[in-house]
Amino acid sequence: MSTDITTWVEEIRAGNLRALSRAITAVENRTADSHALLRSLFAHSGHARIVGLTGSPGAGKSTLVDALAGEYRRRQKTVGIIAIDPTSPYTGGAILGDRIRMQSHTGDNGTFIRSMATRGALGGLSSTTADVATVMDAAGRDLVLIETVGVGQDEVDIVRLADITIVILVPGMGDDVQSIKAGIMEIADIFVINKADHNGAERVEREIKSMQSLSQRHDSWIPPVVKTVASTGAGVPELAQAIDQYEEFLTTSELGRERRVANWRNRLRQMLRDEVLRQIVSQAFTDEAVGRYAEQVASHERDPYALIGEIVGELARREPSC
Amino acid sequence: MSTDITTWVEEIRAGNLRALSRAITAVENRTADSHALLRSLFAHSGHARIVGLTGSPGAGKSTLVDALAGEYRRRQKTVGIIAIDPTSPYTGGAILGDRIRMQSHTGDNGTFIRSMATRGALGGLSSTTADVATVMDAAGRDLVLIETVGVGQDEVDIVRLADITIVILVPGMGDDVQSIKAGIMEIADIFVINKADHNGAERVEREIKSMQSLSQRHDSWIPPVVKTVASTGAGVPELAQAIDQYEEFLTTSELGRERRVANWRNRLRQMLRDEVLRQIVSQAFTDEAVGRYAEQVASHERDPYALIGEIVGELARREPSC
Repeated sequence: MSTDITTWVEEIRAGNLRALSRAITAVENRTADSHALLRSLFAHSGHARIVGLTGSPGAGKSTLVDALAGEYRRRQKTVGIIAIDPTSPYTGGAILGDRIRMQSHTGDNGTFIRSMATRGALGGLSSTTADVATVMDAAGRDLVLIETVGVGQDEVDIVRLADITIVILVPGMGDDVQSIKAGIMEIADIFVINKADHNGAERVEREIKSMQSLSQRHDSWIPPVVKTVASTGAGVPELAQAIDQYEEFLTTSELGRERRVANWRNRLRQMLRDEVLRQIVSQAFTDEAVGRYAEQVASHERDPYALIGEIVGELARREPSC
Repeated sequence: MSTDITTWVEEIRAGNLRALSRAITAVENRTADSHALLRSLFAHSGHARIVGLTGSPGAGKSTLVDALAGEYRRRQKTVGIIAIDPTSPYTGGAILGDRIRMQSHTGDNGTFIRSMATRGALGGLSSTTADVATVMDAAGRDLVLIETVGVGQDEVDIVRLADITIVILVPGMGDDVQSIKAGIMEIADIFVINKADHNGAERVEREIKSMQSLSQRHDSWIPPVVKTVASTGAGVPELAQAIDQYEEFLTTSELGRERRVANWRNRLRQMLRDEVLRQIVSQAFTDEAVGRYAEQVASHERDPYALIGEIVGELARREPSC
């Protein structure tokens, strides 16, 4: 390990926010030194509680996450927030920056917010998010809150990497609420009904309870339903308490360890997939070649299914060790 | 090509719905004969117009897609609908089946609906969706409507495989509406404000227009904003007309071809990625091995970053042709 990395890791561990921020950028961009950095930081990780929060757009996730961070700050805990932002597929970057969010925590080094874009070059968002959580963990954050928009496969993958998963619902989501709940029902350790002062909160609660009676968790935990009004802070201490209770359940039942193993199983698969893509696929499939093939297929000169078979066959022959 | 596949393809092309349904199941499950089937069907594809529709949960997408299908049926066009359903990560299958949706089209062979689950074994949802669209296209459907929930990367990948992308918004989505629009603003060829009889429709329209003035499309098309009330059918003929106009724009400007090439570029990359994962990664990384590694990493006996490097190194040496 180079001296630079050693110094960098020391700075991160000492609470230097610039060093932390620079580390996250390196990990996000998969820079040359990010691998050595992560290897070094991994040894210091494993102490933070990782909490994933997901829910449909309009559920008020950002406000709730900010309020929850505030609650933990009152308890003298340090917090890292990773906010996954939808990205413009053309401009590439996350549209909503950290700047808007940072306002409410200005001057408090105990809360560190990082926005991340949903679009990566070759997938890998959940791997990157997990690595960023590892960096925040190694930096000594007591809690890492990961917040995602939407209910796609990415979101499910991301929240599954957490120790505790919170699903946020709101009253009056309309026709699709059944389908949303179907997708995330079984990953929730805690349900939050935010905007609980709106009409229909009771109905959402009844729907959750009736779906719970049908679902089969692999453990004996019954996910509680916590009602909040994030904008006023109502219900937020109760949410923190529900998190405490689930933590205790995880600890006393040995399920915490089981869950970490299950999470690593997912995460290792994703890491391997990303690495294979990075090392093998992207090198064999240059932009120029893809452009040429795409022209041929679009004009029906070439059959894409046969083409891909040929390329994968070639890939196997081309390995450097041969 | 075997006689079985030839007969099967003939049945599909003759409008046999059972044969079509069986083909889609084969493609979804990546059965042994699905590859030959797709190769054979590809030759007959390329005539359907593929329309992708996306929007946040609660936007009334299903109702709108059904109404749009009805409009095309009145024009004597045949329609295929691919509805991407959120999936339970535990039970595996799509929770909302086709049965509920099929009701309104019962007895009309001109509309064929297929639900697909969001969770695949190793990613690949957008590849599979594109293949299913190819099957429907080869079966002679004039229009294929692909409907997705949410605004994750999967959804963006899926709708980018379409010829025409429609983004559905509704009044009163709350705080997150800005971030949703940021993510999908630039992929929309047509905007729909559904539930336009609700309060706030004008505000959504103003917001779209003001974001449009900032965005940079690579062509001269200005995405129109169509207001609908899908439950009553209001605005649906106008939506079909907007689709016609964009089709004409694509045809006269040669952009249709450019877009198909760009779509194939994305699709070939995804196909290659899926095939590499299927052939290389999943064989090298058995459930048992992953379980063992996950235990070691969870207990911090092993560093995951070094581990993955070792495995990918081994993979390269293990290629069958060596």
